[in-house]
Amino acid sequence: MNFASDTAAPAHPKVLEQLAAANSGPAVSYGADGWTLQAEAMLSDLFEFNLRASFVSSGTASNALALSLLCPPTGGIICHEQAHINCDERGAPEFFSHGARLMPLTGLHGRIKAQVLQQKLQETDESFVHATPPKALSISNLTESGCCYTPEQTTSLAQMAKTAGLGVHMDGARLVNAMAFLKARPADLTCKAGVDVLSLGFTKAGAMGAEAVILFGSNADMFDDFEARRKRAGHMPPKQRFVAAQVVALLQNNLWLELAEHANTMAQKLRDGLLEQGICILHPVEGNEVFARLSADQTSQLRDGGAAFYSWPDGSARLVTNWSTKHSEISSALALL
Amino acid sequence: MNFASDTAAPAHPKVLEQLAAANSGPAVSYGADGWTLQAEAMLSDLFEFNLRASFVSSGTASNALALSLLCPPTGGIICHEQAHINCDERGAPEFFSHGARLMPLTGLHGRIKAQVLQQKLQETDESFVHATPPKALSISNLTESGCCYTPEQTTSLAQMAKTAGLGVHMDGARLVNAMAFLKARPADLTCKAGVDVLSLGFTKAGAMGAEAVILFGSNADMFDDFEARRKRAGHMPPKQRFVAAQVVALLQNNLWLELAEHANTMAQKLRDGLLEQGICILHPVEGNEVFARLSADQTSQLRDGGAAFYSWPDGSARLVTNWSTKHSEISSALALL
Amino acid sequence: MNFASDTAAPAHPKVLEQLAAANSGPAVSYGADGWTLQAEAMLSDLFEFNLRASFVSSGTASNALALSLLCPPTGGIICHEQAHINCDERGAPEFFSHGARLMPLTGLHGRIKAQVLQQKLQETDESFVHATPPKALSISNLTESGCCYTPEQTTSLAQMAKTAGLGVHMDGARLVNAMAFLKARPADLTCKAGVDVLSLGFTKAGAMGAEAVILFGSNADMFDDFEARRKRAGHMPPKQRFVAAQVVALLQNNLWLELAEHANTMAQKLRDGLLEQGICILHPVEGNEVFARLSADQTSQLRDGGAAFYSWPDGSARLVTNWSTKHSEISSALALL
Amino acid sequence: MNFASDTAAPAHPKVLEQLAAANSGPAVSYGADGWTLQAEAMLSDLFEFNLRASFVSSGTASNALALSLLCPPTGGIICHEQAHINCDERGAPEFFSHGARLMPLTGLHGRIKAQVLQQKLQETDESFVHATPPKALSISNLTESGCCYTPEQTTSLAQMAKTAGLGVHMDGARLVNAMAFLKARPADLTCKAGVDVLSLGFTKAGAMGAEAVILFGSNADMFDDFEARRKRAGHMPPKQRFVAAQVVALLQNNLWLELAEHANTMAQKLRDGLLEQGICILHPVEGNEVFARLSADQTSQLRDGGAAFYSWPDGSARLVTNWSTKHSEISSALALL
Repeated sequence: MNFASDTAAPAHPKVLEQLAAANSGPAVSYGADGWTLQAEAMLSDLFEFNLRASFVSSGTASNALALSLLCPPTGGIICHEQAHINCDERGAPEFFSHGARLMPLTGLHGRIKAQVLQQKLQETDESFVHATPPKALSISNLTESGCCYTPEQTTSLAQMAKTAGLGVHMDGARLVNAMAFLKARPADLTCKAGVDVLSLGFTKAGAMGAEAVILFGSNADMFDDFEARRKRAGHMPPKQRFVAAQVVALLQNNLWLELAEHANTMAQKLRDGLLEQGICILHPVEGNEVFARLSADQTSQLRDGGAAFYSWPDGSARLVTNWSTKHSEISSALALL
Repeated sequence: MNFASDTAAPAHPKVLEQLAAANSGPAVSYGADGWTLQAEAMLSDLFEFNLRASFVSSGTASNALALSLLCPPTGGIICHEQAHINCDERGAPEFFSHGARLMPLTGLHGRIKAQVLQQKLQETDESFVHATPPKALSISNLTESGCCYTPEQTTSLAQMAKTAGLGVHMDGARLVNAMAFLKARPADLTCKAGVDVLSLGFTKAGAMGAEAVILFGSNADMFDDFEARRKRAGHMPPKQRFVAAQVVALLQNNLWLELAEHANTMAQKLRDGLLEQGICILHPVEGNEVFARLSADQTSQLRDGGAAFYSWPDGSARLVTNWSTKHSEISSALALL
Repeated sequence: MNFASDTAAPAHPKVLEQLAAANSGPAVSYGADGWTLQAEAMLSDLFEFNLRASFVSSGTASNALALSLLCPPTGGIICHEQAHINCDERGAPEFFSHGARLMPLTGLHGRIKAQVLQQKLQETDESFVHATPPKALSISNLTESGCCYTPEQTTSLAQMAKTAGLGVHMDGARLVNAMAFLKARPADLTCKAGVDVLSLGFTKAGAMGAEAVILFGSNADMFDDFEARRKRAGHMPPKQRFVAAQVVALLQNNLWLELAEHANTMAQKLRDGLLEQGICILHPVEGNEVFARLSADQTSQLRDGGAAFYSWPDGSARLVTNWSTKHSEISSALALL
Repeated sequence: MNFASDTAAPAHPKVLEQLAAANSGPAVSYGADGWTLQAEAMLSDLFEFNLRASFVSSGTASNALALSLLCPPTGGIICHEQAHINCDERGAPEFFSHGARLMPLTGLHGRIKAQVLQQKLQETDESFVHATPPKALSISNLTESGCCYTPEQTTSLAQMAKTAGLGVHMDGARLVNAMAFLKARPADLTCKAGVDVLSLGFTKAGAMGAEAVILFGSNADMFDDFEARRKRAGHMPPKQRFVAAQVVALLQNNLWLELAEHANTMAQKLRDGLLEQGICILHPVEGNEVFARLSADQTSQLRDGGAAFYSWPDGSARLVTNWSTKHSEISSALALL
């Protein structure tokens, strides 16, 4: 009964199978191998869009490298105050951008509120050289509260940002969970909604460690710059085929969407069981995360019974399901209460 | 017949076996898992020394993170002019150290010459605030020319450096090849010779992507700082067990040493065959690399026959063997000439 | 009638006299001149404390260099949300610290509220590598609202910070105005209250461009590091005597304190006149700044009549007096309303 | 008899006069004052070219800020191995550029040799992501050996650089000495020869501390970026009129050229006197610097007699004249030998 994080989960067996398949004979180093080409082509198909993709093994790197393309050292990055880039990446955005500033905004359920963004943008006076102006907007989908941005919501925020001259980044560490919940086409959630650069997660979806950074449309002009930044950050693995192969494994037959649907279903089952016991759920369950307000007794019952999870800064218990969560784990956890 | 690089090689089957073994059930994220603990303990045993170890997936990151501990932004890093950190890491040392300067020195076969180091250190006037003083020495073993530093050679350079107040780093991307060639104990090549921080390579030895950064003795006091730097550089993988498990696989039963002995043997066989044909070998073959002066015809014969290798800046052909190189590949390559 | 800023004021005639006096014959470059030594000695006397002082020509540099000593790239700097370092220095703290994060707190009249600081410090979990921990506290005295921290208030905040392992910085761009208002000894406001590094302003006090960075007590151990950082930031002027001479001019016979008393008196006179006209004053006038809530008509009357001032983000008019403000300017301004 | 440096000299009286003239009444802060506008207009006239100019108080800042416009963090800056940016600025180029690498080349008398530059550019393979490619060329005129680049020499180097996609910077800390020696128009030495960004020195020419950074032609598009970088580096002085006024003082009636001619004449007189005594002069005296090979006895004779100068790394004595050097100082120094 591990609900600590989807990063605590093992990799899906198909990922290991693909790694084994990729492990035959020599391959060109540093990204010129066939698996990398295949993974990029599969992403082009998936997003139905002109794009360039690059593969790294960590989500923090994926986010920070992407942001460093969109925001100069003298600019700022607007994000939600609970965003992973703001709370959980130890200043990686500042490091990779050479000192850009995060500009956290508020909003329910981890979503940046449109009016709050509008106000922030209106306050900005580019001609005032003394203050840091925002230069990029970063949207997390799923949010840190496990909620989705619909295509309309993303479009609305992205348009505001673009009108003000900002680039638009999406932290899609759990985008596939949003795809599964909204039954939306990937393009509608991202490039067609105005996203310039997407950090797309595969690790939480079932990989060992694989993330894609995707430059949509004309943003692909920055690809060479991206590769240079990736190299000097130590994120261009010499045996890159083993990162790309994981992506291939998860994209084949849309396996990752199937896995995300399962994780989402498990979260909904958990939510329903908790609600039945009169436990308050803080955020709509639109992905694979349940935030429950547990009493101290309930917390102990769960932990003593062997359920792992984190206490969240807002006072709730965060319960994360994943591709490997079993129906029986949900039932057992609920039975502990 | 792939002699392009040891990073073009696949991973050893035992590495995949260990990955599969590590892929059962949940594990704590970000390095508090059992495989990480086991890998660190195995390194303590191997080096017979008090140490802390951290695991990353790229050699560039391993080097640059290590150097950022030893050299402040206002200092310099002495290295050989052909060092990987100087020629092949796209400014990663500068990035991670926030602008420290590389100070390349000359020396035969990729080894820093003691007199040249001595002179560089003597020229330094710490009281002259206008010039960048060296603060760290980085030694590559194997060198970029495929040669070893003996324990005595490392000790000699490290003592000079320490006397001048510098920290000592070793880039051990191919240290196991040096261990195999010199039949030396790991400690004698590193901590006992004065190395403070070691970047120890497993990727070229047979992993998919795994490197250890080892802080010896009192340098372990910098471990928390190292972890903070690693995290914000995106080099603390959430599913870290899959990096550590590769290290475990290669250290078990000293598998990596066996593989390095094989790679070294293959290089010697290749060298001997080339010498028999009257081809000049530029550097002593003390590891798994052969630098051969080929005519244009010979180059074409090899390439047309299917042998992959790089032309090196010094005009030679660099031929790299690895754990998977077969006797028949050597014979076939030699037969092409 | 210029109330735009104390940086809009000219330099005091004594400053020019001292520059002329310093302008005779050659002097050693880069800070080894007699005026620099004299200025440092005068500061030692003034603060009755063991210290090292260094002189730069800009307040932004003075703050950012000081903070870079106290906060590593992986840490955070706690300050008031209205602090100059947060609002008006275009990311200089991030630049000089290589990406440390500003952590703005709230509090009335620009003062950090003790409870808010306490809570921020208690929330910090140093063992959680993923979040940026605060490593320095920066206090502005005067605050951005023109108010003082008493020695007791500074001591209280500094003790909390030190208990939590933070270094303490004071932005004293207008410290002399606080000295004048509180009739407090400089040491009581700074080193004896727990300040480690002080950015002490002379430009707003009557210089052309001169600021001191003062390292108190054992912090002087960082002096060499400071000088190296200052040099590579281009803030070690070759003809440094001309910066130090300005400091000498203002410290002689406590001229700067006399000038600050005058500026403060002018502010009080302005405040009194505005209050008589029923105009609301937003913050206690404890230095040389008056924040008045003016109607649109009143704003126009003043501006049309030739009074220069800035509209402040809080909706008030900020009216700043300085050493050169004349009684008649205050009367004329008040007469416009 | 001070030949230590032209930065050891006092400021010219006209500079103080202009400072006094600028010191009347209030002026807008941070560069929107009349003196700044006047100084920029005078530079436009002088260079007969469309340009934007910004003023800082230090040559190190002027160089490093300029280079940060031309070279990204992932690129390299080609310069002469003796260049001030390479030897005397404590890593300022690395700091301001966020880690770009200096690429020092050789050449007689401090001049980059055209063939050496050509070879360096030809070696560069932009498609090889692992190595740092040069992105800017920095030329020092005067060189560190006190020699000039003629317009033809600069044009030749700049064309090579531009053909390879590099931006061209000139460190003109002593450009006015080159103007005086070559009797060349400023434009012919800079913008018309292919210089994109010029760091133009006034401090050594007779100011207290004033340097201009000039963006020629379409490079002016980077002016806003430059101002943002300048601000966050603490190099936008609040009372900027006092920097600009120094430039105005020196440009009026071409005073600085007259002063440079004097300094050059003094250097030639010193050279002639030394040659008469059979002393070897290492570099052509094309500005205000004489590099003399003195015996230990001669060195003592000069120093004991009260002449100040530095021993240079090449073993010579560097003797620098300046605007205030008197004929009698030269005679007295020569008489000591």
